[in-house]
Amino acid sequence: MVVTFIGLGLIGGSVAISLRGRGFATRLIGVELNEEHAKQALELGLVDEVLPLSEAIPQADLVVLAIPVNAARELLPGALDLLKKEAVLVDMGSTKSGICGVARTLARRGQYVASHPMAGTEYSGPTAAIDNLFDGKKAIVCEHTLSSDFALNRVLAMYRALNMDVLFYTNPDDHDRHVAYVSHISHVSSFMLGLTVLEVEKNENHILDLAGTGFASTVRLAKSSPETWTPIFIQNATSISHALEKYIENLQMFKNKIDEKDVEGLSKLMAEANEIGKIIK
Amino acid sequence: MVVTFIGLGLIGGSVAISLRGRGFATRLIGVELNEEHAKQALELGLVDEVLPLSEAIPQADLVVLAIPVNAARELLPGALDLLKKEAVLVDMGSTKSGICGVARTLARRGQYVASHPMAGTEYSGPTAAIDNLFDGKKAIVCEHTLSSDFALNRVLAMYRALNMDVLFYTNPDDHDRHVAYVSHISHVSSFMLGLTVLEVEKNENHILDLAGTGFASTVRLAKSSPETWTPIFIQNATSISHALEKYIENLQMFKNKIDEKDVEGLSKLMAEANEIGKIIK
Repeated sequence: MVVTFIGLGLIGGSVAISLRGRGFATRLIGVELNEEHAKQALELGLVDEVLPLSEAIPQADLVVLAIPVNAARELLPGALDLLKKEAVLVDMGSTKSGICGVARTLARRGQYVASHPMAGTEYSGPTAAIDNLFDGKKAIVCEHTLSSDFALNRVLAMYRALNMDVLFYTNPDDHDRHVAYVSHISHVSSFMLGLTVLEVEKNENHILDLAGTGFASTVRLAKSSPETWTPIFIQNATSISHALEKYIENLQMFKNKIDEKDVEGLSKLMAEANEIGKIIK
Repeated sequence: MVVTFIGLGLIGGSVAISLRGRGFATRLIGVELNEEHAKQALELGLVDEVLPLSEAIPQADLVVLAIPVNAARELLPGALDLLKKEAVLVDMGSTKSGICGVARTLARRGQYVASHPMAGTEYSGPTAAIDNLFDGKKAIVCEHTLSSDFALNRVLAMYRALNMDVLFYTNPDDHDRHVAYVSHISHVSSFMLGLTVLEVEKNENHILDLAGTGFASTVRLAKSSPETWTPIFIQNATSISHALEKYIENLQMFKNKIDEKDVEGLSKLMAEANEIGKIIK
């Protein structure tokens, strides 16, 4: 199958590696506006060639749209217009309301599958692409009833090749509200933890000499790309703002209990939080 | 060498496994008030026997104090009184001001080494103990000039056996202020992230179906033991409260920029936070 990747960063590049390695994609074409990234992707063999959008899409049996969510939303109508009648386009964006809203108005909506593979690392660009990124992880598909059976089946086959479990999440607004809690505020939490410690480090030398694995784990996502995350935060602003409000309230409540040296209150809150261990292994 | 472990949880148990495995400890005695933990520790072979404090300490060449920081501070004077003249006591607590303050008043201060091995996992109890927990990590020693050369050398030898890098951090107040940023608020951040998501999950079904590796990483520490962490938060209340205040301010500032859809402001803050990647690999 000829697969065209629009965007050859961490996600597009990792999909390319796995789809080629597992025999799903036999010819891989890239579209990449960043020249340095295009060069790297070719050197790494992520794709066989890099072409302009207008040449890359009409050749594809499957188009994988893996660029920042604002760019993806803008590009979708034109990309669908360039698509062969029997080809399929799937996007990989972390927000789904915006792009599904645009897609709903398009005549060729059936050829599009709105999806979100729940996987990633804190690194970005073609050099961050790795095999096995998606194995055993979950891929969300929104508004699947608006995709043709043909399109849906092709995307499900792709996710089988990536060894992912597909979850249908009909309503993109629900999806966005939920990922605000289980993905997006994790990133905010981590970005601001990194920033807070860096600010303090300016006045207190060697503070980071003391950083251990706990800090490394909570601050890992602070290395994530602003190019990817700014559009996510903007597109999902309402839900993320609401989630952050609750998170800040809880932090403030915990801080108050520390100030009051409320041993029982602190223990109780931590015991409640421990419940997450039953769900997240 | 006979080593007595006061506390056979994650830390005490893991030190025991490694010191036995590497030939540093030839006889291992445990003191453990939790009967179930005592039983588990014996079954797992973490120690050779479990004895009362008054019998276990006088037999030891080295005593490893690995209990919650409030209990450690209370127990230190009596434990030092029971110690052989040529034996050494080292503690493993995550806060150092309180216990160093108590130690300073004691006649046998020279036999004590105030330390903090910067390692752990989110699990607790004897069953959480593992070999290699400390390898390649850092161990802090505070107020080393108040320890005798003999005591210091024995503890340095123990940390060499654990394959840890020792850092002298003379001032325990500096230590506590710094770990508030690079360890303690990571735990608060994670506990409250877990709590926030669990609260929302009560009304929104299946939200945790969407949790990916990013969430798992930032919420990992929310599984940590309230028994360990409540005393740390109480003992280091001033520094942690100050750190949390700055963290909450930064989160609120980020939230405001999301509300204002301030693309440039958000990108700039994330790019600043990215700097942490140069320090924390």
